[in-house]
Amino acid sequence: MPEHTIALDAMSGDQGIAAVVPAAVRAWRESPGLRLILVGDEARVLAALQRAGATPDDRLQIHHASQVVEMSDPVAHALRAKRDSSMRVAINLVREGTAQACVSAGNTGALMATARYVLKTLPGIDRPAICTALPSIEGHTHVLDLGANVDCQAEHLFQFAVMGGVLARALDGKPAPRIGLLNIGEEDIKGNEQVKQAAALLTEAAARHGLNYIGFVEGDDVYVGGADVVVCDGFVGNVALKTSEGVARMISHYMKQEFRRNPLTRLAGLAALPVLRSFRRRIDPRRYNGASLLGLKGIVIKSHGGADALAFGSAIGIARSAVDQDLPGLIRSRLEELFGVEEPA
Amino acid sequence: MPEHTIALDAMSGDQGIAAVVPAAVRAWRESPGLRLILVGDEARVLAALQRAGATPDDRLQIHHASQVVEMSDPVAHALRAKRDSSMRVAINLVREGTAQACVSAGNTGALMATARYVLKTLPGIDRPAICTALPSIEGHTHVLDLGANVDCQAEHLFQFAVMGGVLARALDGKPAPRIGLLNIGEEDIKGNEQVKQAAALLTEAAARHGLNYIGFVEGDDVYVGGADVVVCDGFVGNVALKTSEGVARMISHYMKQEFRRNPLTRLAGLAALPVLRSFRRRIDPRRYNGASLLGLKGIVIKSHGGADALAFGSAIGIARSAVDQDLPGLIRSRLEELFGVEEPA
Repeated sequence: MPEHTIALDAMSGDQGIAAVVPAAVRAWRESPGLRLILVGDEARVLAALQRAGATPDDRLQIHHASQVVEMSDPVAHALRAKRDSSMRVAINLVREGTAQACVSAGNTGALMATARYVLKTLPGIDRPAICTALPSIEGHTHVLDLGANVDCQAEHLFQFAVMGGVLARALDGKPAPRIGLLNIGEEDIKGNEQVKQAAALLTEAAARHGLNYIGFVEGDDVYVGGADVVVCDGFVGNVALKTSEGVARMISHYMKQEFRRNPLTRLAGLAALPVLRSFRRRIDPRRYNGASLLGLKGIVIKSHGGADALAFGSAIGIARSAVDQDLPGLIRSRLEELFGVEEPA
Repeated sequence: MPEHTIALDAMSGDQGIAAVVPAAVRAWRESPGLRLILVGDEARVLAALQRAGATPDDRLQIHHASQVVEMSDPVAHALRAKRDSSMRVAINLVREGTAQACVSAGNTGALMATARYVLKTLPGIDRPAICTALPSIEGHTHVLDLGANVDCQAEHLFQFAVMGGVLARALDGKPAPRIGLLNIGEEDIKGNEQVKQAAALLTEAAARHGLNYIGFVEGDDVYVGGADVVVCDGFVGNVALKTSEGVARMISHYMKQEFRRNPLTRLAGLAALPVLRSFRRRIDPRRYNGASLLGLKGIVIKSHGGADALAFGSAIGIARSAVDQDLPGLIRSRLEELFGVEEPA
């Protein structure tokens, strides 16, 4: 009897089936406790399974869906006109309890809106947030929101902080994760209005409810360490994430260029190759792929649109951890603890 | 007869005189067309000059100032209680025409507020912005605002775009610099309200006044290239800048760790050392030190607080280029061209 059942949006992402199916087959082979439901065009998924040397069984199922949400689809179109999309059906499987989580590499806006519409938010949460772990000198830092909410009020930032704290405690086993608020200076006088007000809310919750709020942090702290959770609005978080990707690409570009300058530097590059490879593995963004949509009554994991099979596999791993820990249940309990919020009867 | 006269806030930055004076002495030795006025505690500056083997002359002057703006000074305190600070006096020298530009590594908030109070903004500019060049795969990208304005309206972003365009044209000699607006997706539907409205203003100006607005860009484009100027509000810009610093530090940390793993990797590191050094020089942030405070009736360059003599020297170089090009004059002309804005009589 499998311990985990996870629905995969097989048609999602730049590579679609070509990334999702091999990732699924690999996870299915390696984890006897895992059941995967591949949601998408039945014939195409079946063909891809066969190419990967697998046939459907109880732990590797296909669930047909006739439509696909495209990356360019407006959110409203995805919601109204694509009710039989692989994305929507995968989320439906979570709502009805057939799957405990779903993973999609599809259009972020559509995924967030559909998940929110189908699964609903937890009591006490106004808006779900996208949270992912980024590598740091200390290990990693959970950052949210990464793009779901472009305009946030202080209350939203506060809710993100609570959810991020629960996630870090559950996934990393840290009893009191350090929660920092992203700002442009560590002094109290700096920052915009929302950030200042959120700081006041967090300071109060720290005193009354034992939230481990450590104050303002700056952009470099995400990668250098010092906080386990960094909270920001989705616009800022998304820019920070993309900017980071840009820096890493530039550094890699210049590094290659320097090693290719002349025969002598090429020789040095050859000598350094095993080290450079091991370094690259260490900060490989594919290992960090898989963002949690937090604040929903169900587990939805967003894989990077450009994910390959290895990266999609990481996202499946994150879904499993979230199921193991019952992340939505933990967030719900923590909100009740903090505010006594309960579901209206 | 020197072509450039630049006032230096000798007491500014983490290293203060220890960075500014050696940078000044070096620039003074190398550039016969340059006059520098070191503003600060006369006795201490003189002693530092002597330690650096220099004596004051017509091209290397000391201008006494009895106070220093500390990094921790609130802006209001710096403005009201420190009228004889080295920062304020250096800016005064620009206003009265004794110097054509000034450079300070002091408290950013105090520098911006003092410069704005003493020099005033150009007609048509509501708020000055901080602009710096960041390295990219294509060369470099000018980014503004980097922290002067935490809450921006669309009009402010539009003004930043105009100023950034003038700066890129003047400093890089590009006839029509590509101007991008930082957003979290390249689709028109994404982004917050200010960004969408600013996009409309820029699209109109592109059609009517030949502004080379290329649309939305994302965080990675800053380092990968595609735009010569990237416009954003100061909160977002500052977070992006600091996050970039964090990524670079993390990468450098892990790289060192991998090369130090065992005797074999150390040997590989030794072989690769000249290449790694040359790579490091290439992206050395000290070479990019020196941010322009744009939109003022005078040239003020902000050096990084942690700048050493080499980095402070780069900031002096940026001040010279700005003087050469008469940057404030060019911005003023461009604004008149765009809006027919003229100084009230």
